[in-house]
Amino acid sequence: MNAFSNDRSLTAASLGETALLSRIREWLGPCAPPSPRGMGDDCAVIEPGANLLTCDSVVFARHFEVSTPPDMVGAKLLKRNLSDIAAMGGIPREAVVALFLPPETTLEWLEGFTKGLAKCALDYSVSIVGGDISQSPTLAATLTLTGRARRPLTRGTGGAGDILCVTGPLGASIKGHHLTFTPRIEQGIFLSINDAATACMDLSDGLAKDAPSLAGEHLAAVLDLDEIPPSAEALEQSDGDAAKLTKSVLCDGEDYELLFAVKADAVDALEEAWVDRFGAPFFRIGHLAPRGDGPALVDSATGKAPEGAHGYEHLR
Amino acid sequence: MNAFSNDRSLTAASLGETALLSRIREWLGPCAPPSPRGMGDDCAVIEPGANLLTCDSVVFARHFEVSTPPDMVGAKLLKRNLSDIAAMGGIPREAVVALFLPPETTLEWLEGFTKGLAKCALDYSVSIVGGDISQSPTLAATLTLTGRARRPLTRGTGGAGDILCVTGPLGASIKGHHLTFTPRIEQGIFLSINDAATACMDLSDGLAKDAPSLAGEHLAAVLDLDEIPPSAEALEQSDGDAAKLTKSVLCDGEDYELLFAVKADAVDALEEAWVDRFGAPFFRIGHLAPRGDGPALVDSATGKAPEGAHGYEHLR
Repeated sequence: MNAFSNDRSLTAASLGETALLSRIREWLGPCAPPSPRGMGDDCAVIEPGANLLTCDSVVFARHFEVSTPPDMVGAKLLKRNLSDIAAMGGIPREAVVALFLPPETTLEWLEGFTKGLAKCALDYSVSIVGGDISQSPTLAATLTLTGRARRPLTRGTGGAGDILCVTGPLGASIKGHHLTFTPRIEQGIFLSINDAATACMDLSDGLAKDAPSLAGEHLAAVLDLDEIPPSAEALEQSDGDAAKLTKSVLCDGEDYELLFAVKADAVDALEEAWVDRFGAPFFRIGHLAPRGDGPALVDSATGKAPEGAHGYEHLR
Repeated sequence: MNAFSNDRSLTAASLGETALLSRIREWLGPCAPPSPRGMGDDCAVIEPGANLLTCDSVVFARHFEVSTPPDMVGAKLLKRNLSDIAAMGGIPREAVVALFLPPETTLEWLEGFTKGLAKCALDYSVSIVGGDISQSPTLAATLTLTGRARRPLTRGTGGAGDILCVTGPLGASIKGHHLTFTPRIEQGIFLSINDAATACMDLSDGLAKDAPSLAGEHLAAVLDLDEIPPSAEALEQSDGDAAKLTKSVLCDGEDYELLFAVKADAVDALEEAWVDRFGAPFFRIGHLAPRGDGPALVDSATGKAPEGAHGYEHLR
């Protein structure tokens, strides 16, 4: 579907803001509560109690293309934020959405986008409580999400000797996983309730960039490269080339799995409870160690930084 | 100052995201608390208790120009949101900021923008606790703000006979007030604490569009056009033309004054307390009346809709 049209009757501009807002509220349906708990006033009045706040954006031609189904764009916008709430061990709650619309954006695209967002919001019990529409030459959107965690899971709070784990396979997300992934909300809540987990984050910029961020300033992330589970797409793409496969699981972004640290003496018990809960184990991929003057990321086989490992650097 | 440069060494792209984020945190200074209360983790961990949530954006060439000082752009982005919190009678708390940056955006512009935002945040005790940077062809930003109101002030909750009041003069905001305005936080809190106020909103799309929104579906906003205080700029611009002046105070947007309804038998006492608190009165500009089949906005002199009155319609 083309997101834009020169036929004005098909576009957002044909409605103007007031009518477009009504249309968007229709498309959102039951995930958008009435004012004052939702859209229609200066602010939304929300239940007090949220202790998590995050925001993430999608931009045309960067995070999605003309060929991306608009409902997947809307869902992705929310899921990126859900993954951040999951990484803190939280339950998601309310969202506000700022839209940037070229006047030639079609109503059909906007309907698809909004309904995809709304379906995902219903799936995760998120209320869309407000937003803003600005005219812009670039189609984009920002979503801000609140959440509540009993024990927020943070980065840089693991200890030397803690085991590093991931919730699922990594690499080659660009083949489709970056749109179809499931935010690890249940897993994050599970880790938040269990004291064994000492640190957690979601993998969005690639393990090579993200693991040092989880480890923090004074620790190194020591990875057993052979233990990192590759996705089926990463395996297929590497075509038997081990170096290419390692690069894919280390450097590709948008995995949206959780990377977490667990006290070494508690990891077996945690895994048992995890299997009881989720029917499959997590993956142990290394450990945290004192860093000293060494690199932040270490290949356990060589004791050195993995070759050619880097994460996604925005704006470069 | 030009916001963009072809000399890469002067631009955001010269740093890349990680270094740019460090720079932004330096520029923000004390309004940006350290992780986990601020930037640096998947979400910010905030104090529970916020019951207000709102977001607003600024877009290059729509809300600001190359000639707009970048610190005023940063301050305006926050002040637009502060005005929404004020309209609910709330105290502002935490903010997250999503930036959309063309790679050629200069560091000088970003520094000015960020420092303007930070100064305003300090002035209003707002913590900047997180954000997101996306590459985009269009320079823009969204800010989401939380707040806390003991008694949130809403729209559509006034009664027939309630007196309509505004906190300050209206019109010709484009001459500079849209950048230099003071969000009416103290006035909003005052109205929230006093039971006499029955409804409140901030004037952003022009009185002609906003007053019916305050009145709600079943009431009309009846305006005494001669009582609406014009700004000095509106007076100067109209050059003695009464019709032009009326159009300016009714239709110009971005006044960012509060429009509120007060029970008729309580308005004198409220005004007395208001003068004690703020040293100057508010302005009584009309009242709410049963609407029936009539227009949503009524000129009290004619009993009809004011001529040529309309507010700002986005996307048209």
